[in-house]
Amino acid sequence: MNTLTASATKALQERFNLIRQRTETICSPLEPEDTVVQPIVDVSPPKWHMAHTSWFFETLILAPNLPGYKVFHPQYAYLFNSYYNSLGSRVLRDQRSTITRPPLRSIVEYRAYVNEHINRLLQVLPEEKVEQLRPLLELGLQHEQQHQELLITDIKYILGTNPMLPVYKPLPDTQKQSIATAARFLEVPGGKYKIGYQGDGFCFDNELGVHEVLIEDFEVMNRLVTNGEYLEFMQDGGYGDFRHWLDEGFALVNQNKLEAPLYWVRQHDEWHRFTMSGLQKVDLNAPVCHLSFYEADAFANWSGKRLLTEFEWEAASQVYPPQGGNFVESELLEPAAAEPAEEGLQQMYGDLWEWTYSAYHPYPGFTKAPGPVGEYNGKFMINQMVLRGGSCATPESHIRTSYRNFFHPDKRWQYNGIRLASKK
Amino acid sequence: MNTLTASATKALQERFNLIRQRTETICSPLEPEDTVVQPIVDVSPPKWHMAHTSWFFETLILAPNLPGYKVFHPQYAYLFNSYYNSLGSRVLRDQRSTITRPPLRSIVEYRAYVNEHINRLLQVLPEEKVEQLRPLLELGLQHEQQHQELLITDIKYILGTNPMLPVYKPLPDTQKQSIATAARFLEVPGGKYKIGYQGDGFCFDNELGVHEVLIEDFEVMNRLVTNGEYLEFMQDGGYGDFRHWLDEGFALVNQNKLEAPLYWVRQHDEWHRFTMSGLQKVDLNAPVCHLSFYEADAFANWSGKRLLTEFEWEAASQVYPPQGGNFVESELLEPAAAEPAEEGLQQMYGDLWEWTYSAYHPYPGFTKAPGPVGEYNGKFMINQMVLRGGSCATPESHIRTSYRNFFHPDKRWQYNGIRLASKK
Amino acid sequence: MNTLTASATKALQERFNLIRQRTETICSPLEPEDTVVQPIVDVSPPKWHMAHTSWFFETLILAPNLPGYKVFHPQYAYLFNSYYNSLGSRVLRDQRSTITRPPLRSIVEYRAYVNEHINRLLQVLPEEKVEQLRPLLELGLQHEQQHQELLITDIKYILGTNPMLPVYKPLPDTQKQSIATAARFLEVPGGKYKIGYQGDGFCFDNELGVHEVLIEDFEVMNRLVTNGEYLEFMQDGGYGDFRHWLDEGFALVNQNKLEAPLYWVRQHDEWHRFTMSGLQKVDLNAPVCHLSFYEADAFANWSGKRLLTEFEWEAASQVYPPQGGNFVESELLEPAAAEPAEEGLQQMYGDLWEWTYSAYHPYPGFTKAPGPVGEYNGKFMINQMVLRGGSCATPESHIRTSYRNFFHPDKRWQYNGIRLASKK
Amino acid sequence: MNTLTASATKALQERFNLIRQRTETICSPLEPEDTVVQPIVDVSPPKWHMAHTSWFFETLILAPNLPGYKVFHPQYAYLFNSYYNSLGSRVLRDQRSTITRPPLRSIVEYRAYVNEHINRLLQVLPEEKVEQLRPLLELGLQHEQQHQELLITDIKYILGTNPMLPVYKPLPDTQKQSIATAARFLEVPGGKYKIGYQGDGFCFDNELGVHEVLIEDFEVMNRLVTNGEYLEFMQDGGYGDFRHWLDEGFALVNQNKLEAPLYWVRQHDEWHRFTMSGLQKVDLNAPVCHLSFYEADAFANWSGKRLLTEFEWEAASQVYPPQGGNFVESELLEPAAAEPAEEGLQQMYGDLWEWTYSAYHPYPGFTKAPGPVGEYNGKFMINQMVLRGGSCATPESHIRTSYRNFFHPDKRWQYNGIRLASKK
Repeated sequence: MNTLTASATKALQERFNLIRQRTETICSPLEPEDTVVQPIVDVSPPKWHMAHTSWFFETLILAPNLPGYKVFHPQYAYLFNSYYNSLGSRVLRDQRSTITRPPLRSIVEYRAYVNEHINRLLQVLPEEKVEQLRPLLELGLQHEQQHQELLITDIKYILGTNPMLPVYKPLPDTQKQSIATAARFLEVPGGKYKIGYQGDGFCFDNELGVHEVLIEDFEVMNRLVTNGEYLEFMQDGGYGDFRHWLDEGFALVNQNKLEAPLYWVRQHDEWHRFTMSGLQKVDLNAPVCHLSFYEADAFANWSGKRLLTEFEWEAASQVYPPQGGNFVESELLEPAAAEPAEEGLQQMYGDLWEWTYSAYHPYPGFTKAPGPVGEYNGKFMINQMVLRGGSCATPESHIRTSYRNFFHPDKRWQYNGIRLASKK
Repeated sequence: MNTLTASATKALQERFNLIRQRTETICSPLEPEDTVVQPIVDVSPPKWHMAHTSWFFETLILAPNLPGYKVFHPQYAYLFNSYYNSLGSRVLRDQRSTITRPPLRSIVEYRAYVNEHINRLLQVLPEEKVEQLRPLLELGLQHEQQHQELLITDIKYILGTNPMLPVYKPLPDTQKQSIATAARFLEVPGGKYKIGYQGDGFCFDNELGVHEVLIEDFEVMNRLVTNGEYLEFMQDGGYGDFRHWLDEGFALVNQNKLEAPLYWVRQHDEWHRFTMSGLQKVDLNAPVCHLSFYEADAFANWSGKRLLTEFEWEAASQVYPPQGGNFVESELLEPAAAEPAEEGLQQMYGDLWEWTYSAYHPYPGFTKAPGPVGEYNGKFMINQMVLRGGSCATPESHIRTSYRNFFHPDKRWQYNGIRLASKK
Repeated sequence: MNTLTASATKALQERFNLIRQRTETICSPLEPEDTVVQPIVDVSPPKWHMAHTSWFFETLILAPNLPGYKVFHPQYAYLFNSYYNSLGSRVLRDQRSTITRPPLRSIVEYRAYVNEHINRLLQVLPEEKVEQLRPLLELGLQHEQQHQELLITDIKYILGTNPMLPVYKPLPDTQKQSIATAARFLEVPGGKYKIGYQGDGFCFDNELGVHEVLIEDFEVMNRLVTNGEYLEFMQDGGYGDFRHWLDEGFALVNQNKLEAPLYWVRQHDEWHRFTMSGLQKVDLNAPVCHLSFYEADAFANWSGKRLLTEFEWEAASQVYPPQGGNFVESELLEPAAAEPAEEGLQQMYGDLWEWTYSAYHPYPGFTKAPGPVGEYNGKFMINQMVLRGGSCATPESHIRTSYRNFFHPDKRWQYNGIRLASKK
Repeated sequence: MNTLTASATKALQERFNLIRQRTETICSPLEPEDTVVQPIVDVSPPKWHMAHTSWFFETLILAPNLPGYKVFHPQYAYLFNSYYNSLGSRVLRDQRSTITRPPLRSIVEYRAYVNEHINRLLQVLPEEKVEQLRPLLELGLQHEQQHQELLITDIKYILGTNPMLPVYKPLPDTQKQSIATAARFLEVPGGKYKIGYQGDGFCFDNELGVHEVLIEDFEVMNRLVTNGEYLEFMQDGGYGDFRHWLDEGFALVNQNKLEAPLYWVRQHDEWHRFTMSGLQKVDLNAPVCHLSFYEADAFANWSGKRLLTEFEWEAASQVYPPQGGNFVESELLEPAAAEPAEEGLQQMYGDLWEWTYSAYHPYPGFTKAPGPVGEYNGKFMINQMVLRGGSCATPESHIRTSYRNFFHPDKRWQYNGIRLASKK
């Protein structure tokens, strides 16, 4: 093995261990009891996330590639397959809380076992085989990062529906008063834009099929919509006025008696919200969060603006390349108010995923890979909307301007927010 | 009144009477009992359609414009409003079968009353007022035509779920053997295409916002997919193989045990389908019909092709302008096999609405009109897919290449079919 | 045929024709459209009742006994079987509104055809065969009478959920002011009482198995509970106080936001109720009607009393034999205030079925007949409560003191009311 | 304090400590993760049972009676109230799995805290005050015993729906081959029987109101119906033949595709069942278990017999007083085959609760106590059937011949079985 590939393998190994370790860190404040429940079908038990990401490495990497590899437990394939039909039958998605055993400590062992064997694999495998496996290993790591974000949102939901509203992490000591930043609209010139992943690193199959899209001139808001701005909508009777809403959204509002974003609680005549540090007063300068697409769209209509399409978002990010952002590494786990800035777009990366008015559909020429990897993205390309830019629960190394996240328009438990375009 | 506008008003009046009369013709084979039931929420009672279209003229045209107009019945506004929040409360959509009274004969009177007053209005109104009203009157007529198509599909569903499978109209005498036409794929060159309605006649607000879209080279199938081709998919186990399906579609198939299009019945080991002329053997050369988007997409995947986007469909119709078609005027009320032809696209108009892989979203610059007319299209722009081209239940004068029909991807009771693009 | 049996047969024939004619009379105020809908699963379309009762005679009497009898239509057996598994498959109970065809006029013909053939059968059959058939014919007539009562309650529900609240019959001209009658409690001495049908006429199988039951001394209310008394319960917050309610009843109240009996509507600050003569002010002296068992029980608890058991009711009717009553023959179709009376029990017969606190279970020695007749009563002996005494929708000749009616405790659309026992 | 009452208090204290300790023993084989889930609404999380029984003592005994008592945690009253409306709002019954915190270890502390304070209370309280409190303390202990039984059935369900089918306790070493015992029917003479609790110890309010019931001569089966006998019913097509079933039961069978008792699994062509010691072959001589009332009744009909009423059961237990039984103290936690015996009734106590054909209704003169204790039994007296005799999960000291257990007729997760009466 020459030095170059040896160090490449070593880097891969380090990256593997670092990312895997992160999952343990996320789960460390939890009680075993927190790790097994599933309060709504969208939320998976944390223990399940921990095992499922390991099952991915075991099934797709270790079993076919490490000679003599013995699976940790023969039933885990059934327990921890998520939705891969090509990989056999599985516990139904809404039945994940039935898996009280294996207990958390067995899952911790499972993770260590898989880690150990992946490390061994990287040591024993000839360099060219490592290179062949690299895309799949990378997919496994990206997959783990996706589940790290889900772990955070699911933990928030589990704690937030517990009547005791437990604190996941204490408030940072350095908590300082946030500052209001004025909303401005920046021009993005119309024209042809190349959409899709154009680099040579990792990306998901749904970003491939680079193609040009014609975009008309438009203006984009410099930062995310704030709690203060959203409160004006609420106080103006926004939830009660059908004219702002898509029909299915208004039906949902009435059926569930919605009157504020998820996690908002009115207490002593003042709005609070459940955060990862427990119940806190709503910070009017921080971005409004945990909204459905319907709420984002209704707010946009009320304000005389509109949401961006995913193509406009990507174009804007080409004109004003995003830098930095409030990612999971900041350890805030909540969105933060934009810093006052003279120019440029803020919060394009991090803080909150931004709902776009684009359905999650295939790019031209999209094809599914054969086998289980082909089930990763393509089969979900209906009835979901694209979100862009990552959130305060996203690992920084996981985001790209071409990254397409997607959720059904009624989902509120992710870190979702609003950026506006001006209406023409 | 000068001769020109007089004759324009006269033409409008004739058109009004002709279109209104068509609704009566469609309902004439029905028993009163057929006109009141609602077997699924999607299907409205025929009597309701008859009254609702009249309510539209009464509420939006007569009441505000005909001096001294007295509404036919004060409660009808409540009974026959469909979904216009701006026009007051209404019978809930899934409760329309509660309206057993007024009986059919009262609705027939209601229609005559409204017709009579619209005719009077057109006689008494000064020409320039008629011109001002023309767009709204035209909208009322287009609205009536839309409900005529729904009347046909809803009547088909009502008769098709009746265990006696009643015949709506006898088979045409001239029924001749259909001929198989080979599938060919025709090139559509890539480039910029103007999308949206560019004429100066009537169109819906969702066709406005003409804009250019970049399209890559593609190939389009010369005709609709046939029953014979779809049967191959079925016989190849298509309904049982998850690889062809969107995840939500496959769940639907399993939950409802689907194994064939709507109205297909296996009898004496042979496939039949319920038609407007009762149960008939499936004609292998005729277009396959009454499919969900999921089935259309699964078939496309199985065949190694794909569906068109709505932009590709519109581009193809610019390269190969459609001519004629099997519309409601043919009185077949079922799709018919394509005639053998050397060149060009067939069945772009009529026969069946074609599912596209485009979500029903606003075009750039889309705005809703203020007031009730603004509720017509915009509030449904979520979770629905666009269909193009009209069907054998569509009035010929109602279709345009820019016409955007839309339904949720699971809906099967409309006259929906499949056209393929070749996959690149 | 000797004179005696000839006149017996003639009497049977007259009774048959009279009872069958009554069904037509009940349906005569209906529009064809009223006869086909099914607003809730409990309510069957009137047309279905008309056909089902005829199917009973055709299937169980004519087909096996009238030589050469040709069924009216081969599919009617499938369409109009209610729940007799032994008589083949059938339209599912909640799908009865799919039967828009045959239209009402065909059902009217069907009824005439069956009537004509039953009359012919009684003419041609030898006397001893008529005697053999008499029990089944009698069952058919009792069955028709049961459906006559259901017809009235189902028609009331169909009209009462129609937003136009149509009038079934005009208010009687002679409508006079009702008079308040004081509530008194009459003693029924404890001891052994014989329960079950002890005569030699017709009764249902569920009344057989005469047996003795020990009853303790108790006191029974002289009349039904009035609207005025029930209104006090409502005004005292009865619907909001859990202490009065069975747990499942209180859950139902909260889930459906109940605050008054079925058909009560608050208008201009005054309680009205929908009646067979349209919306009318609530008569405080008339018996309270259209209540669930839960409401009856909650009212009893609130008033410091209790409901009777079915055995106590039957014992009371032995001590104070009921005479006359407000039956369907009065053509009021609504319960009426009790006349002032010095002594005795009033309203034991007619006006309203009285909820008892007895589950509908088999009497000792109960057996089901073999074949379809065995499906009549026995298979429903779970989760239902017994009601006694008949109502203003019951034919007078149909009631007995041993008659056991039964409904689930949440049902409100029947003519149900409350009689109290004093609590010991 | 004189010696007598001192020793009475001491006995009470010992009994308290023993019973409370038993709950810990039952839960000791569990992982923390097992103690928090709620796979169906009927099943409560074990942690919840542990806390709820403690909350009962804290709320009803300690808080009002121990001067200066400080509740363990102010929110527990909200978390662990089951259904007592008089004691404030609470976590909804189907939301109990949201209580991941407090974790199991806090609940263990809570239990110790309550135990310690009850012991202190019994030490400091004057003897006459103890005597006053005794009924409520006794109710608390009986309540704890009821929840011990529920703990066992709920744990069985939690483990039995876990795909790994974990073992709660190993099979006893002494497992010996069971022996078949012939079914015999024993006479119970008809006459007046006194029903209800006639002793001077503890009983629930639903056993009060001693009253005489007339019973006719009948015969009762000497033991419970076995798996072998039930298998014959299954093999005879019992689940598919409507004639044996109550209508609602047959609907349930078809809807849920039932074909065997709960926990039965067909493996390698042989019936197994999940037991507290994992999956085991079905023992044909052991009593059939985990059946709904519907299944018990259908089996009885198939076999030409019937179920007993609760009065017949109590009469039989007076004629043949039960002795001993397979209670929770045997630590089998599964029903066992009856020992061969020449005479008498077997298995009247223990093994399995026996479904009776009696609705759970009030006895004559039943009254609810004022306050929370009044919510214990009375409000559930609808739609449930009485079971008698206790099971292998019941503490021996908890059962009486007058004890009335009750469940909805579709419930299968309790230790329920069948005893027959011969049909007359």
